[in-house]
Amino acid sequence: MARFKLTIEYDGGPFVGWQRQDNGLGVQQVLEEAIRGFTNEVVTLHCAGRTDAGVHALGQVAHFDLLGEWEPHRIRDALNAHIRPHPISVIAAENVDAEFHARLSATERRYEYHILNRRSPPAIKRGRVWWVPSPLDAVGMSIAAKVLIGHHDFTSFRATNCQAKSPLKTLDELAVARMGETIVVTARARSFLHHQVRNMVGTLSWVGQRKWSATNVERALKARNRAAAGPTAPADGLFLVGVGY
Amino acid sequence: MARFKLTIEYDGGPFVGWQRQDNGLGVQQVLEEAIRGFTNEVVTLHCAGRTDAGVHALGQVAHFDLLGEWEPHRIRDALNAHIRPHPISVIAAENVDAEFHARLSATERRYEYHILNRRSPPAIKRGRVWWVPSPLDAVGMSIAAKVLIGHHDFTSFRATNCQAKSPLKTLDELAVARMGETIVVTARARSFLHHQVRNMVGTLSWVGQRKWSATNVERALKARNRAAAGPTAPADGLFLVGVGY
Repeated sequence: MARFKLTIEYDGGPFVGWQRQDNGLGVQQVLEEAIRGFTNEVVTLHCAGRTDAGVHALGQVAHFDLLGEWEPHRIRDALNAHIRPHPISVIAAENVDAEFHARLSATERRYEYHILNRRSPPAIKRGRVWWVPSPLDAVGMSIAAKVLIGHHDFTSFRATNCQAKSPLKTLDELAVARMGETIVVTARARSFLHHQVRNMVGTLSWVGQRKWSATNVERALKARNRAAAGPTAPADGLFLVGVGY
Repeated sequence: MARFKLTIEYDGGPFVGWQRQDNGLGVQQVLEEAIRGFTNEVVTLHCAGRTDAGVHALGQVAHFDLLGEWEPHRIRDALNAHIRPHPISVIAAENVDAEFHARLSATERRYEYHILNRRSPPAIKRGRVWWVPSPLDAVGMSIAAKVLIGHHDFTSFRATNCQAKSPLKTLDELAVARMGETIVVTARARSFLHHQVRNMVGTLSWVGQRKWSATNVERALKARNRAAAGPTAPADGLFLVGVGY
């Protein structure tokens, strides 16, 4: 038995999310069926972070086991051939120890959230940005973001259906930078609660609109109540950029 | 009568190109029908560069005339509302003099060509890059590109159906730069022949693969024969970035 680690890029648009679901196609299902397609083995893929419907990945990580012997680069190429025409691409395949677990061994998740902040809607980046037509104060958002960095109870930024045992998380980075018409929010932590990044971005958008200040964000955090924070930003703008081990 | 200049972004993927055609939808048609939708006027749009099927634009420019009086920003917003759900976005609308002509007044066209140069196919950028899985020598391509800069007879890089009167053009810039897995080719000239950028990129790809040197590119240019140069790179990677006046 050999364990393989995959690094995966996908456009989340056409999928119900990472996980297999009854109401549509999951990224996991496409990959598991592609693996079966060339190995004839039925496998279960375990990923580092189960992305929601519409959320993209540049560096999702997953592992699976095979009974047969395969060169990692052959797995990458055969998978990419069997995945077509779905917008999923296996960037890398590696042999890993039996102790490696894509989710449990991960020590860091990195996300980016992209906001297109201009009057006109996106054409080229449609489905890959949150379009906010009114001007956002990115500097104000950047200052307010600092309030959320550190070890906190993130109940106010947690989806009501979040299954994590504890709302306590350590947020290592939350940075906001404007690059022309695009505002990029970078978030880095060992792990995140369900919808945490999107809820933080939605809340920061209120600061960007000058409806809220950094003090309001601090109050929302301390309230430990989802209703005290801002809206959930749409899935379109979110990218799982990479996972650290 | 008032003349308006539009700056337009579009994803070329779903269209037969800029121009109206019998076999599918053109960008021009969507825009002309959107203008009619809110002005009730039948107009003809004139663009700076008629892009082919699958070619994208970040800054296409077009002009049209209206009998009615309209504020430019209302034209931009109404157009964007009427364009939906097509992936076309009007970035700017401006009032211009009656002498302004999007094609005839243009003094510069800027294109970018994006190559994804990695083993794995694109997922996020599918349809917006030319995927070349074998490693390309971008430095070699950059050196060979210099051979094409200047005033030349570009017959070797001209589509056989090109309708330009003369094959003589002045290429002001042709630069090749690698940014990680992406190679970006930037081309700038007063005007280009049909397929000129794609034929130059296809030819440079032979240099990138080390099948050809800069000397071969020079010979191809001097041959004044389309058959002497390399292949036409696919439409997917080409962006009309901007037009100068």
